Amino acid sequence: MERVYNFSAGPAMLPIEVLTEVQKELLDYNNTGMSVMEMSHRSKPFEEILNNAISDLKEIMNIPDNYKVIFVQGGASQQFAAVPLNLMHNRKAEYILTGEFSTKAYKEALRFGECYVTASSKDRSFSYIPDCSNLEIHPDSDYVYICENNTIYGTKFKQLPDTKGLPLVADQSSCFLSEPVDVSKYGVIYAGVQKNVGPAGMVVAIIREDLISDDSPFLVPTMLKWKTQVDANSLYNTPNTFSIYVCGKVFKWIKNQGGLQAMKQKNLAKANILYDYLDSSNYIATAEPNCRSMMNVTFRTGNEDLDAKFVNEAKNYNLISIKGHRAVGGMRASIYNAMPVEGIKNLVEFMKEFEARYLK
Amino acid sequence: MERVYNFSAGPAMLPIEVLTEVQKELLDYNNTGMSVMEMSHRSKPFEEILNNAISDLKEIMNIPDNYKVIFVQGGASQQFAAVPLNLMHNRKAEYILTGEFSTKAYKEALRFGECYVTASSKDRSFSYIPDCSNLEIHPDSDYVYICENNTIYGTKFKQLPDTKGLPLVADQSSCFLSEPVDVSKYGVIYAGVQKNVGPAGMVVAIIREDLISDDSPFLVPTMLKWKTQVDANSLYNTPNTFSIYVCGKVFKWIKNQGGLQAMKQKNLAKANILYDYLDSSNYIATAEPNCRSMMNVTFRTGNEDLDAKFVNEAKNYNLISIKGHRAVGGMRASIYNAMPVEGIKNLVEFMKEFEARYLK
Repeated sequence: MERVYNFSAGPAMLPIEVLTEVQKELLDYNNTGMSVMEMSHRSKPFEEILNNAISDLKEIMNIPDNYKVIFVQGGASQQFAAVPLNLMHNRKAEYILTGEFSTKAYKEALRFGECYVTASSKDRSFSYIPDCSNLEIHPDSDYVYICENNTIYGTKFKQLPDTKGLPLVADQSSCFLSEPVDVSKYGVIYAGVQKNVGPAGMVVAIIREDLISDDSPFLVPTMLKWKTQVDANSLYNTPNTFSIYVCGKVFKWIKNQGGLQAMKQKNLAKANILYDYLDSSNYIATAEPNCRSMMNVTFRTGNEDLDAKFVNEAKNYNLISIKGHRAVGGMRASIYNAMPVEGIKNLVEFMKEFEARYLK
Repeated sequence: MERVYNFSAGPAMLPIEVLTEVQKELLDYNNTGMSVMEMSHRSKPFEEILNNAISDLKEIMNIPDNYKVIFVQGGASQQFAAVPLNLMHNRKAEYILTGEFSTKAYKEALRFGECYVTASSKDRSFSYIPDCSNLEIHPDSDYVYICENNTIYGTKFKQLPDTKGLPLVADQSSCFLSEPVDVSKYGVIYAGVQKNVGPAGMVVAIIREDLISDDSPFLVPTMLKWKTQVDANSLYNTPNTFSIYVCGKVFKWIKNQGGLQAMKQKNLAKANILYDYLDSSNYIATAEPNCRSMMNVTFRTGNEDLDAKFVNEAKNYNLISIKGHRAVGGMRASIYNAMPVEGIKNLVEFMKEFEARYLK
């Protein structure tokens, strides 16, 4: 079987160079005589894997010294609770709703305190990003929350909200490491790694030091306290060691690709091929042009039966997992860092053929 | 480099047959053209992996129909909070302290309610399991908690406590799947998989149906509610898919070995080789004979410098990670299911040599 072009929203494609290395080392990592899966998380070789991963990430993202990097379990969904539990000292927060995951985060936070819907794009089915240049923000709120790239709706913040001095908390799960970001503009960045970085079951969180504390009006489970993990360098208990190892390899792969600026150029080029074709075709792109995601491209034929036919026929061209989320319908091509440009070109070829047959 | 005998307490050795299969499938699982790491957790192939893992585990452990199996993240440490958050309806619980992990669980639970130290072996440095045949149990306590096998101290409950009708909650992290258990005697069994089953970053929990509910006097983070995961068949969000996949292969490996009865015979035989030699030697076995663990064998030379020399020299014989936990000192040989009997024999050979040189 040849490798397919996998457009899954996550878990998703990983760089073939990384997978090949992982395969080679699977029974014997670096002459240790064991797999990384079998290695004590307190052993020297693993400590090296962990510390290299952290320092490579800091280098790639140019993370300022007053930020801490931790690897934690439970996915973004667990951070939906961890964010208020760690930050809601005044039990008030601002949420900007631009899709399913920000709404889920909002609903979880609502259980812990007062949450304001500061802005929302629900009125037009989350097909755009609301203007956040002059938000009405309660000055005693603890933070402003966004989901920076909306996997399901295919939209992305092109400009960060003006938080009027409050810490910005961003779920970057589906755009993490896709382009350079100015970390200093955020209070907290976190991302489930399974979309653009590595094997599922881990979140990378980057937290400004002054936001890490033991103080909380809540009874915070020890494992959900960021301070627990910061103080222990992510080794409070056994972390997802294998995911850390693979993510570390992906960080190095990104460095070899030329870093985040080069990733952005490649991702932009890939996304443009698809969007340019979409705009010239009889398909319907569902996200509004000024906020289109480079990572998740959503479109429809305009006919549900044809959408289903599209998804099915695509499989014959080795184009897999292109069905849209049930909330939007249609199709979604998730084209993360590891998707080769050939995948996009093949997709467009197939789309043209399909268009000629059914959409003229 | 040849494969070493890795006596790490966890993460620990995995069956070579399993690792070889994982390696073979790493770039292309079962003709899907992708790695399991790249596969949507909502795809058919992954659903099959998940459901097979659950049904194989149910078969191996003979799990009654009124128990649910879930795969969750965060390790045992996260369950230290999840247990009281899910079960402490009366905010009272009984804890039996037999080592570091039961004490940690107790301390976490103390933050949520009243916890009684129902029995303890702290008086003799946790070198034994207290008599739990006639405990003084508060009838309105919500549960009785044990850590069934104490990784650090090398002890194990040979008989379960008489809980006088209360649900028994057992952390089986370091003895899970090492021998048959009567699941019906437990309210909850949970285990971090990284010791005896698979890659770190996942817990298997087996929970009696009547203990799964939405009711709680606490504000439980959605991800820590067992009901969330039970209702979603462990797919509320993206689980640790790769760990589920490898664990599933280990479950099949156990079936091929003859199931848990056969595992027990092998484990007993392996442990006996080591204990029999220890008892006839000048080494000091640290756990009391009637409660010795089959999985973690702790011993000392009686001299700290010699202990350090032992650990160092062992490496030259491909015997790795045999240093004891700092709480006990000396040595610890963790000999889980995947440790071949040759590993034990080689260890004993080395111990004899070392004894002849330094301990006569």
